[in-house]
Amino acid sequence: MGASTRRKGRSGGGRRARIEARSSNQSTARPGIDRNIPYYDLLPDETLALIEHNADLLLEEIGVDFNGNPEALELLSAAGAKVDGERVRFPAGLCRELVQATAPAEFVQHARNPERSVTIGGDRTVFVPAYGPPFVRALDGERRYATLEDFQNFVKLAYLLPSLHHSGGTVCEPVDIPVEERHLDMLYAHIKYSDKPLMGSVTAPSRAADSVAMMEQVFGAEFLQSNTVLTSLINFNSPLVFDQVMMGAARVYAENNQATIISPFVLAGAMSPVTVMGTLTQILAEALAGMTYVQLVRPGAPVIFGMFASAVSMQSGAPTFGTPEPNLMLLAGGQLARRLGVPFRSGGGLCSSKIADAQAAYEAANTLQVSAMAGVNFMLHAAGWLEGGLCMGYDKFIMDADQLGMLSVLLSGVDTSDNAQALDAFREVGPGAHFLGSAHTLANFESAFYRSDLADNNSFEQWQAEGEKDCAERAIERCKSLLDSYEPPPLDPAIDEAMIDFMARRKAEIDANGA
Amino acid sequence: MGASTRRKGRSGGGRRARIEARSSNQSTARPGIDRNIPYYDLLPDETLALIEHNADLLLEEIGVDFNGNPEALELLSAAGAKVDGERVRFPAGLCRELVQATAPAEFVQHARNPERSVTIGGDRTVFVPAYGPPFVRALDGERRYATLEDFQNFVKLAYLLPSLHHSGGTVCEPVDIPVEERHLDMLYAHIKYSDKPLMGSVTAPSRAADSVAMMEQVFGAEFLQSNTVLTSLINFNSPLVFDQVMMGAARVYAENNQATIISPFVLAGAMSPVTVMGTLTQILAEALAGMTYVQLVRPGAPVIFGMFASAVSMQSGAPTFGTPEPNLMLLAGGQLARRLGVPFRSGGGLCSSKIADAQAAYEAANTLQVSAMAGVNFMLHAAGWLEGGLCMGYDKFIMDADQLGMLSVLLSGVDTSDNAQALDAFREVGPGAHFLGSAHTLANFESAFYRSDLADNNSFEQWQAEGEKDCAERAIERCKSLLDSYEPPPLDPAIDEAMIDFMARRKAEIDANGA
Repeated sequence: MGASTRRKGRSGGGRRARIEARSSNQSTARPGIDRNIPYYDLLPDETLALIEHNADLLLEEIGVDFNGNPEALELLSAAGAKVDGERVRFPAGLCRELVQATAPAEFVQHARNPERSVTIGGDRTVFVPAYGPPFVRALDGERRYATLEDFQNFVKLAYLLPSLHHSGGTVCEPVDIPVEERHLDMLYAHIKYSDKPLMGSVTAPSRAADSVAMMEQVFGAEFLQSNTVLTSLINFNSPLVFDQVMMGAARVYAENNQATIISPFVLAGAMSPVTVMGTLTQILAEALAGMTYVQLVRPGAPVIFGMFASAVSMQSGAPTFGTPEPNLMLLAGGQLARRLGVPFRSGGGLCSSKIADAQAAYEAANTLQVSAMAGVNFMLHAAGWLEGGLCMGYDKFIMDADQLGMLSVLLSGVDTSDNAQALDAFREVGPGAHFLGSAHTLANFESAFYRSDLADNNSFEQWQAEGEKDCAERAIERCKSLLDSYEPPPLDPAIDEAMIDFMARRKAEIDANGA
Repeated sequence: MGASTRRKGRSGGGRRARIEARSSNQSTARPGIDRNIPYYDLLPDETLALIEHNADLLLEEIGVDFNGNPEALELLSAAGAKVDGERVRFPAGLCRELVQATAPAEFVQHARNPERSVTIGGDRTVFVPAYGPPFVRALDGERRYATLEDFQNFVKLAYLLPSLHHSGGTVCEPVDIPVEERHLDMLYAHIKYSDKPLMGSVTAPSRAADSVAMMEQVFGAEFLQSNTVLTSLINFNSPLVFDQVMMGAARVYAENNQATIISPFVLAGAMSPVTVMGTLTQILAEALAGMTYVQLVRPGAPVIFGMFASAVSMQSGAPTFGTPEPNLMLLAGGQLARRLGVPFRSGGGLCSSKIADAQAAYEAANTLQVSAMAGVNFMLHAAGWLEGGLCMGYDKFIMDADQLGMLSVLLSGVDTSDNAQALDAFREVGPGAHFLGSAHTLANFESAFYRSDLADNNSFEQWQAEGEKDCAERAIERCKSLLDSYEPPPLDPAIDEAMIDFMARRKAEIDANGA
């Protein structure tokens, strides 16, 4: 298999042409990581076609509930779906056709610092912090509710760590701020304390509208209408329900040309069948239905095929992470997204451990490695996640970020240049000698191997002399030192003022009206 | 790509025919894990061909030192190599030709319990404990020199844990036994306390001979001459030196039809060039030279392409584990072995951490996941390894074994049966409901998802109520309970007596003569 087809996956030339035709916002494309290793193709084409066939059968025979949104039902009906109450059934192939007709294969999400803009889709990988935890495992080891200060800290850390390409969204829930208003503080923190791209609020359509309006203060309304500056997380309510709030938020973003991730959130065995094939079928059906809706709202609006799958423990009903079945799903999910020709979101440093111990690390690493092989484009939850997503760990964040640095080297593949072949080194050194002082090593050592600033590779004796610190302790030390070193990126004072004014106005309105 | 070619890798039909022609000892083939997912093919064929070309160039132009073994030099010279002092140069292609002519593509290693026999090579994966640590991290947390009791404990644990298919070799160094005699106690412990296959001693040719003789007590001399009952680890002395002791041990095993793993042990940057391509080139050259020697000693003797590669830290010179460059080497190494058509040994739960913390787990998981993707057949160091191999951890052993259980599910691939497609489950449940009580879930839940007996998936509150135990603490508890439950497998008293007699006789000889 040649290098160029290898990097593009297995599909035929038709998909390639389609991707090029559907690429949008390409003027300032910037990669997170430019993938230079093959995708891992777990399933043969015939099995993928079977999943696609079964997903079509679900969409046609069983259908999807689009709840509380008569406008959506009209839109879907006009596009050829059969609407019966709130149940929507799609003729086989309709969703795929509508998505492939207009959804971009990749898109640029602009950051306020153009050097931080990322291209999402294609051969690129973007690492994004964990999303949603109401708790933190704090710097002093205490587990407590998250605050706005924690939120700001994680934004600062993601800004400082080069292996994170994105500032994320709800990096933790600032529960010290009223729920009706906290989306404004979160957006402001992302923009103020970082210059990396970010995610908008989805917890109410009005908060999505606020997110767009806030970004207008930064980028201007005109720029925003023709460029994507927000990528936001729209969960599908599995099985087979698209609820009013999520649909409403998705609509706001799509109407404004902003990106959405249509993400079935599946605890397999509870919210989907207890098999890999069944769960994949359902996820594909749900993602297709959601992406179809987005493309009907605004054809060409950027949309990402999202997938979050955990297996529930059949003993306790608890979600599990880093286990083999969801990893098989993840690998196949990447293939399904590539066949569809849209960007893929999945994976991350998932775990169910309550602390940053060996369980957390095994589970996170298992999913991270597989995510990289699977070709995840937008890796949400890449750093910080503990307790099945209920808790954000300062130590875990630093540890995961180190792992992401390693993945970026893995994804960059193998240098095959003459220098890398090192024939002169062999001629210089020969049998029984060593390469440490060779000319080739001296010329290459600085960029040779990934350098972890967290792993302790020293002797037992040296580690002992330095206090027998475990990885979590070293991570906390590194975290404190990073936060101490933090300096904010420059921000135009006029933009800062405009955002502060906007927030104050909106908070006053929310206090008065409740929304 | 169809399922059958997928499972066989990418090479053409010629290799397949060759493999079938060279399969030996097939009468009682039993798998460890039967691989049912594709190999991850990192490098395109032209890059693999380039590495093979460069390895040939090394073998032809620079050559390999075969130290202190005039007999070997004669054998190699007679086969067409150019011998200059102890430096041996091979005409391009000669090693590959000699290895492919007679080395089996896969072989059965017999265990004393035929149900434990394993097939090594092809689509099979065998998990083997860590090898060589002089220290243990004990059940009470202390780090100290290993003893024979520790050795016996790890043999018992590997016997009890179904995810380990092999009893291994020097699972730790019993330093309380004189170095000249301990190989006998180790062999006896493997046979007495387990019925899984095992590895022989390589630290002197006489100890290899003792290993063979001891196995004759178990299997009979005749059976042993036509069947493989030992797989032993022959390290190549990188760069490009095959030393007298290792060659002598390899000769003993090959002459007796026993398997050897020819394993370059490379700390890249010190013992090989500081690049992925350069290190792969050297490893291939060394493995080819060593396997050629084995095939010349006894054509058809089972031999495994071994590969152990770590990147040294360019700051401290210390070996590092779980990092991306050795993982890229590992993936390519699997491809090189498949092109050669011999079994592949690499990978494992490698780490440099001193304790079973998050560092240990990230590093181990990174290598374990990649090993599975790479198609490692004989995964030495799969469980227990700490401190870059200097220490065997009781907790780490239990943790790694749990990960191996997960890998065996991953390697088994995706069930695509009608039952797994679960269309009836969707028809039963429908949008907005849940699958927990559905007929399909009830019929499938018992075998549905991998069940870890180590991961804590419970709520924070429950975990807290149960004492906030970290993964290492739970692993120690599980380890103690396993050892408490241990009962030895049945052993014919006549065999036991014969082994004890043999040991006593040899120990008396060693005491008298020093060997």
